[in-house]
Amino acid sequence: MPVSRKSKARSKVRVGIVNVTGYAGVELARLLHNHPGVELASVTGRAEAGKRLAQVFPHLADIDLTITAELDGVELAFSALPHKTSAEAVAGLLQKGVRVIDISADFRLRDVEEYQRWYEVKHPCPELVAEAVYGLPELFKKDIARARIIANPGCYSTSAILGLAPAVKANLINGEIIIDSKSGVSGSGRTLSLSAHYSEVNESVSAYSVTGHRHMPEIVQAFRDLNSRIPVRLTFIPHLIPMTRGILSTCYASLLSSKLHHDSSDQQNVTEIYREFYRDAPFVRIVDAPPATKHAAGSNMCLIYPRVDDRTDRLIVFSVLDNLVKGAAGQAIQNMNIMLGFPETQGLEALALYP
Amino acid sequence: MPVSRKSKARSKVRVGIVNVTGYAGVELARLLHNHPGVELASVTGRAEAGKRLAQVFPHLADIDLTITAELDGVELAFSALPHKTSAEAVAGLLQKGVRVIDISADFRLRDVEEYQRWYEVKHPCPELVAEAVYGLPELFKKDIARARIIANPGCYSTSAILGLAPAVKANLINGEIIIDSKSGVSGSGRTLSLSAHYSEVNESVSAYSVTGHRHMPEIVQAFRDLNSRIPVRLTFIPHLIPMTRGILSTCYASLLSSKLHHDSSDQQNVTEIYREFYRDAPFVRIVDAPPATKHAAGSNMCLIYPRVDDRTDRLIVFSVLDNLVKGAAGQAIQNMNIMLGFPETQGLEALALYP
Amino acid sequence: MPVSRKSKARSKVRVGIVNVTGYAGVELARLLHNHPGVELASVTGRAEAGKRLAQVFPHLADIDLTITAELDGVELAFSALPHKTSAEAVAGLLQKGVRVIDISADFRLRDVEEYQRWYEVKHPCPELVAEAVYGLPELFKKDIARARIIANPGCYSTSAILGLAPAVKANLINGEIIIDSKSGVSGSGRTLSLSAHYSEVNESVSAYSVTGHRHMPEIVQAFRDLNSRIPVRLTFIPHLIPMTRGILSTCYASLLSSKLHHDSSDQQNVTEIYREFYRDAPFVRIVDAPPATKHAAGSNMCLIYPRVDDRTDRLIVFSVLDNLVKGAAGQAIQNMNIMLGFPETQGLEALALYP
Amino acid sequence: MPVSRKSKARSKVRVGIVNVTGYAGVELARLLHNHPGVELASVTGRAEAGKRLAQVFPHLADIDLTITAELDGVELAFSALPHKTSAEAVAGLLQKGVRVIDISADFRLRDVEEYQRWYEVKHPCPELVAEAVYGLPELFKKDIARARIIANPGCYSTSAILGLAPAVKANLINGEIIIDSKSGVSGSGRTLSLSAHYSEVNESVSAYSVTGHRHMPEIVQAFRDLNSRIPVRLTFIPHLIPMTRGILSTCYASLLSSKLHHDSSDQQNVTEIYREFYRDAPFVRIVDAPPATKHAAGSNMCLIYPRVDDRTDRLIVFSVLDNLVKGAAGQAIQNMNIMLGFPETQGLEALALYP
Repeated sequence: MPVSRKSKARSKVRVGIVNVTGYAGVELARLLHNHPGVELASVTGRAEAGKRLAQVFPHLADIDLTITAELDGVELAFSALPHKTSAEAVAGLLQKGVRVIDISADFRLRDVEEYQRWYEVKHPCPELVAEAVYGLPELFKKDIARARIIANPGCYSTSAILGLAPAVKANLINGEIIIDSKSGVSGSGRTLSLSAHYSEVNESVSAYSVTGHRHMPEIVQAFRDLNSRIPVRLTFIPHLIPMTRGILSTCYASLLSSKLHHDSSDQQNVTEIYREFYRDAPFVRIVDAPPATKHAAGSNMCLIYPRVDDRTDRLIVFSVLDNLVKGAAGQAIQNMNIMLGFPETQGLEALALYP
Repeated sequence: MPVSRKSKARSKVRVGIVNVTGYAGVELARLLHNHPGVELASVTGRAEAGKRLAQVFPHLADIDLTITAELDGVELAFSALPHKTSAEAVAGLLQKGVRVIDISADFRLRDVEEYQRWYEVKHPCPELVAEAVYGLPELFKKDIARARIIANPGCYSTSAILGLAPAVKANLINGEIIIDSKSGVSGSGRTLSLSAHYSEVNESVSAYSVTGHRHMPEIVQAFRDLNSRIPVRLTFIPHLIPMTRGILSTCYASLLSSKLHHDSSDQQNVTEIYREFYRDAPFVRIVDAPPATKHAAGSNMCLIYPRVDDRTDRLIVFSVLDNLVKGAAGQAIQNMNIMLGFPETQGLEALALYP
Repeated sequence: MPVSRKSKARSKVRVGIVNVTGYAGVELARLLHNHPGVELASVTGRAEAGKRLAQVFPHLADIDLTITAELDGVELAFSALPHKTSAEAVAGLLQKGVRVIDISADFRLRDVEEYQRWYEVKHPCPELVAEAVYGLPELFKKDIARARIIANPGCYSTSAILGLAPAVKANLINGEIIIDSKSGVSGSGRTLSLSAHYSEVNESVSAYSVTGHRHMPEIVQAFRDLNSRIPVRLTFIPHLIPMTRGILSTCYASLLSSKLHHDSSDQQNVTEIYREFYRDAPFVRIVDAPPATKHAAGSNMCLIYPRVDDRTDRLIVFSVLDNLVKGAAGQAIQNMNIMLGFPETQGLEALALYP
Repeated sequence: MPVSRKSKARSKVRVGIVNVTGYAGVELARLLHNHPGVELASVTGRAEAGKRLAQVFPHLADIDLTITAELDGVELAFSALPHKTSAEAVAGLLQKGVRVIDISADFRLRDVEEYQRWYEVKHPCPELVAEAVYGLPELFKKDIARARIIANPGCYSTSAILGLAPAVKANLINGEIIIDSKSGVSGSGRTLSLSAHYSEVNESVSAYSVTGHRHMPEIVQAFRDLNSRIPVRLTFIPHLIPMTRGILSTCYASLLSSKLHHDSSDQQNVTEIYREFYRDAPFVRIVDAPPATKHAAGSNMCLIYPRVDDRTDRLIVFSVLDNLVKGAAGQAIQNMNIMLGFPETQGLEALALYP
């Protein structure tokens, strides 16, 4: 297999990763290494430039690359830099004719003012924001195919938007929305902090960013794109739980009484609307029992269980995914596949690692 | 300390534990062993009867007791049996003049019909239900002092009721309530099940009992007791997370607009109402940042952070406790202290085990 | 990739899994699903027969199979049954001309008496033991290629044997060997037990099987095969640690003074001997710092760090692998690849899932 | 209870903690708060000076203290500073007539040269080393009672020395010793590092400090103190496992054949020697099955299981404790009790927190 891959290497698309040393960067490297259509040709990482990739990440020993300061000779790049720095890098890459999938938040919000308010920085290249495409393939596949800049969605945002998109689109709910998300610790990255210090996190759960998490405006923007008539009033509370990977978003919304028959057909209708909405989405599966994050670990799947609570006429949707795959690197590669005309699932076929 | 305890040993109240072999039972033994006012005199456990307590639970080696089939010679008993079986045991103990604190759900719901619907069994002694007191000391201390039967609240119920009681009592909210709870695995007990099998639970989170968890009617009953004018419509969704101890309930409710000034005084008012409500409650602390379950591990504290979400006029309350202490054994001992005229905090002074 | 796989689908080898419902069985299904050379055609599981695979294991939803009572129409089978039952199934499969890779211990020990002593059962088909090949490809690749029955090694055994094989073969050590292994909980399987109950295992570590673990005779047998002149006196102590996957074996042995120069060349020599021994082994990597099990999670790699302790003239070898992959299902597929003439690494190229 | 404690406060001994903000410091505060014989009167912590203790550590909200830059008005102090800085603080405190229990390593090794070699710093006050007493009460209780400086032992050292002391003292073993220790992550402290970053540590195990851990010379020194005739050749390898608290040391040694009868009396003799050795040690319990760290979590107990491996004539000793209690703060308080003439167990009676 490695042999056959090398023999075909000439025709592979050369791709690179800017800032490979965070968790999203490492996960991109892991997944791209086994992708048959591309060659991971260049990886950067300021602090570790000059080292072999395997020195820093023993599990990547099969990837024969040295970390450099700048990307070199690639047609498409993934930027896994922090926000602001990422936009600067994206602008430079575009000038060299490189298409970019940006894992950071820099191009997610179309309203530059809103971006600057939430991220408390000046956007380095506001003129590029308009052409960026929000890289959620289940909603925007056509635009993704043609884009030069993809704004890869946030991990929470992906779980939340996919969880409620069918209901929003179909006018099932009234806009009073509560999303209670539970995330593994890898979502906070590889940068050291007390909130990711083992002994502080283990055997504990707590909410954070309760005054407003930065993924919130992204979620609202997507709901508006889907259905501008719903006056969304969103409360979004993320929680940190003691595990490495995975997000479960529990989404609560009020069903419009005009849509309800108050019998078992309500559940059937909702399920049907969800199944239909994701009919062509290879990485979303509508399930009929509460999903566990373990069912998605290491895979690019998002499992969604929509449920009508007939006691209260609320819709409760459970949405799980792996924050580093469908919530970051996997989704980025799904976007890449669409941009490069590959099958959407290429290189992303691995089943979840259970148990 | 051991010396002084021994010198007073004659005057200690003799207490017992029915079914010491579950996690609530073991936790009772741990806490009672260091309680200066009582002597743990008798413990039962069907499957393990005849064994030394230390044989089954090495950490209890300092407790010099043999597990028996029946309680013997006690003035007050804790029943940690499963529901139905527990009520049968309670009835027997009462006949012998023993006061009972029942950890099971058998006496929590005043409406016997409702109990039978939720627990799908016939209540063995419905005639005793009326005299049982719901053992949440922060709400019902006076009744507890005189009771023969205490219905010790459920772990989720305790976190949820304490989290919203001040708002319900003060008419701050309109009855549209969502409670999203996250629990450690010990809440599901020591009985083997796939849902508590290490490799299934670790590195995963999922919701369960989504069609209706048995703690729900208990929560609604308490809210009605506090304020019958609020038309409660409650959605309660419990989640299992990979840790042993702890519950975080995130409670969402809509603030009545008549109570809001839409400025920073709203948060101050809510905080003040909460502080005032729990002014005499030694085991509730109103905090001003999201609490972590680790802050309560091993202790009888419930930490509550009420927060006004000014974007949406919602009240969000974060309530944490240790499910085996304030959610079970510790609360039972707090009830015992009140029943026996001891200081409410006696034997429960240990600070949380952090980290 | 899926396209090319489908075009060749007619020529794929049909394989099956007996008892797919344990962790080794599920892991086989996960890995075989993405193997380009075989088709997973049949899976059995007594208690779950009749159900769709996806009903029992949501993460396997992409595999379109119903669990049956008996295997059907396969050329090669994996048996993931418990010992004794497995040997019975193997005998039946052989009679139908099916080659079998047995994950159980039934054919690992060549001495039937020894097997019966350690496993406390009568071997159901002792006449087949002699022809079985111990399926450790790094030692016995040639025999594996021709075998009808492969005895897939134990998880501990694989880590321990690979860890010390070069030293044993090269006569570096004197036979006084201590192996201290640390294993994740999935090694004890999916069957419920108190020792795999979440709240008992989490936040704890302990040794078990201290009077003699069943993988011990397998390890000794392999060392004797490698070098019958070394009088092996082995202490092997397994420990259970709170994680799902992974084994680290720390192996201690006394270096023969005749092999030592007491300078830095000793470490170099040992490293060189290890590198040379595994020169053609694609799944063993000799590393130069203590490896972590996370470096191998989900992959078929075994990482080995041999170290000369110059204070004591001892050899200390750290050997890590994923107990369900290189310690069970992955190694079984590696054996299958060799038996079927596929590239040894086919279907096993995935890098470790980190973090 | 708080009332009665305060009324007696005048007669309590005033103690302080230097550097309360690490895990050992916090654990001291937790345990001292409930100690009836002392008053925690002063706590320091450079970076957090000026803050209320509860601001930094919510679980300590019941302790009414402000963190200061210097200790004030105490008779006895605990230093939880890092090495070197600690010795400097100890010297200053002694000059003020304050007795000190030093949690750091600065006074553990009697050979100053050896200290300087292992810790790679110049000892700030070598003249004080000779009078310091190694604070392992099970071995040196009499010296502890009179000491001005206590060198509180390392966490690994405590588990290892207690595990083998009876065998060393009784000449049962020949000096060829291997100690394989497994520790929770809190042992590496509250200071941020990649090796304590949640996502790196969780679901993983690895060895570290394999070229020589600093607790090794301490262990050797204690064995020599116990029995200078045994030529100790020690290999000590610590491992980091994914849990917060606890150490299990598995100790391997060769039994002298002159001490063996090669029948069941060997195990009985060893057990008897261990029981006798610890007859007056309230915090060591000799058990007869492999102990789990969970059996000691949060308590000051050390559980030891000595076992004769009759296959190899080796002695295998399993020794577990809570690294922050018996391995640090609890042992320090045990030392304090001895120094102040309190009952040895005072304030340390809490049973382990299980599960």
